[in-house]
Amino acid sequence: MPNAVRRHIINNPQNVIDEALEGFALTNPHLVNFDPENNLILRKNPAQGKVGLVSGGGSGHEPLHAGFVGNGMLDVAVCGAVFASPTAAQVLAGTVGADTGAGVVQIVKNYTGDVLNFSIAGELADDENIAVEQIIVDDDLASQKSEGGPGRRGTAAVLTVEKICGALAERGADRATIATIGRDVVSRSRSLAIALDAGAHPGESTAAFELEPHEVEFGIGIHGERGTARINYARADELVEQLVTPLVESLEIKRGQSVIALVNGLGGAYPLELSIAARRVHGLLNASGISVARSLAGSYVTSLNMHGLSVTLTVADDELVKLWDAPVRTSALSW
Amino acid sequence: MPNAVRRHIINNPQNVIDEALEGFALTNPHLVNFDPENNLILRKNPAQGKVGLVSGGGSGHEPLHAGFVGNGMLDVAVCGAVFASPTAAQVLAGTVGADTGAGVVQIVKNYTGDVLNFSIAGELADDENIAVEQIIVDDDLASQKSEGGPGRRGTAAVLTVEKICGALAERGADRATIATIGRDVVSRSRSLAIALDAGAHPGESTAAFELEPHEVEFGIGIHGERGTARINYARADELVEQLVTPLVESLEIKRGQSVIALVNGLGGAYPLELSIAARRVHGLLNASGISVARSLAGSYVTSLNMHGLSVTLTVADDELVKLWDAPVRTSALSW
Repeated sequence: MPNAVRRHIINNPQNVIDEALEGFALTNPHLVNFDPENNLILRKNPAQGKVGLVSGGGSGHEPLHAGFVGNGMLDVAVCGAVFASPTAAQVLAGTVGADTGAGVVQIVKNYTGDVLNFSIAGELADDENIAVEQIIVDDDLASQKSEGGPGRRGTAAVLTVEKICGALAERGADRATIATIGRDVVSRSRSLAIALDAGAHPGESTAAFELEPHEVEFGIGIHGERGTARINYARADELVEQLVTPLVESLEIKRGQSVIALVNGLGGAYPLELSIAARRVHGLLNASGISVARSLAGSYVTSLNMHGLSVTLTVADDELVKLWDAPVRTSALSW
Repeated sequence: MPNAVRRHIINNPQNVIDEALEGFALTNPHLVNFDPENNLILRKNPAQGKVGLVSGGGSGHEPLHAGFVGNGMLDVAVCGAVFASPTAAQVLAGTVGADTGAGVVQIVKNYTGDVLNFSIAGELADDENIAVEQIIVDDDLASQKSEGGPGRRGTAAVLTVEKICGALAERGADRATIATIGRDVVSRSRSLAIALDAGAHPGESTAAFELEPHEVEFGIGIHGERGTARINYARADELVEQLVTPLVESLEIKRGQSVIALVNGLGGAYPLELSIAARRVHGLLNASGISVARSLAGSYVTSLNMHGLSVTLTVADDELVKLWDAPVRTSALSW
């Protein structure tokens, strides 16, 4: 299937992240500060004495994570190169920057490089008397194997974890409580994704892979890698059902239970497509007697301009919905 | 330049807007209601006694306008087919739906069909004793001609007008005041856009036009039409300068003045590109002694998945910034 030659609105491919973060901070001066030395986006006015929340990872997933820095969500986003983990030194700087005396909780998507560098930074922070807890987010059902390997990848559920933990930190919860509830949210969350077209790195003229017109990549991650299977291109309602059914089965969601549902664009899906998918997610769950307590449809955890979407379900209860509803004021999520 | 074969995550191309609006309403039940008969998105809990704000037009520009329905912005969005005006009957239903006794202000992008159908609806509403004022938004500098024709097109400045008028309505301003200030915002606003690739209609496998690798479409609108010129593909900083310089000249913005600036993605630009463009907008204006009082960078007024962006400048004063800062609670804009 012929790919368009992709061009980008950038200057030097080497400077994409530095310049984008500078532009992001200039656009959101009421919300964030920018540390250009470590490519950190820091909350403008950290609440004193609350637990600091740090996340980060490779770039190319915008608005994640910088777009979630602000009141009620993250204190610091540590930004690596496109699809590459930030260094331990960067994460350490972010961890120090997030601490206002009550220690720090790191929210880390499960990728080898990220886990390694966040862990090293956590140990180094400990040497500086900053107590650190870590939550590993591993929601991607497609990368689940019966044994061995690095385990499930972290994808869009990181948004849910950051929102819930942000609300907890804001209301004064301690590190252990935030970490325990955050890990519980992870265990209640699974995601699955499809893509019709791969994304293109800034400065690269072709997409990461090509598909035939009848093919859809199933079980795709957010780093331009191939998925776990190719399925047939079909109507939106059929494609979405192939995501929702395994999620409900894996989480063993029963009639009468409720969920928080994310319909997440991977960068190249336009809002009409995401809304049509959201309609189907609601329809399928309601038909199974599962209540959608809250939902979002938008491009939040992207893979450059990949044309596809993921569905994330989190089994909810009243307390989780209350934390979800708590005020948040960031550039990408605000209510 | 070879175009990719575009596929879409849709069901039947005929039902795209109906299904997307249903999905949008299911995702945002706390903010909106959906009238499927007239394809209206209505604010969930209209404030009683305030002037109702109605906008709308062709679809394909999401999150515009449905994403701006809510507290502090629109009361009703009237949604046509992709790039096609809603009928006068639809607009009438939206106008009636927005009225809670204080009359209605229509915010209309300057396209012949939209202006015609909103005007007819306004007259019909008047027959039902609903007083209607109309604001025509015509910010697109590229379509400015010395004489004749339908005048400048309406593009991204409609967001600024909806935000300012929404704040005025919320604070209890009457129709005449809202219309007068809204028209003043229009007169203070100009936009210019470029595109590197055209968008594709849902269900159509090719983009609206093709460009050579060295070409960028300049002065493009939001309906897949060609621009007014082709310019050379260049670094982001050079492309953005070619948008900002004519805007500053046209608005005769002087050193010491301040602006509200929108860097608006047309659907296919990813956030890294928009942030890099925003950095340049800030840099150019600051270098000219023009202060950026407020700015946004995101995909707000799109043209399906067109890969491009527009810049909108609105000459600001303290009162306008105060109205901009007033609380807003919609799915696409919230603070």
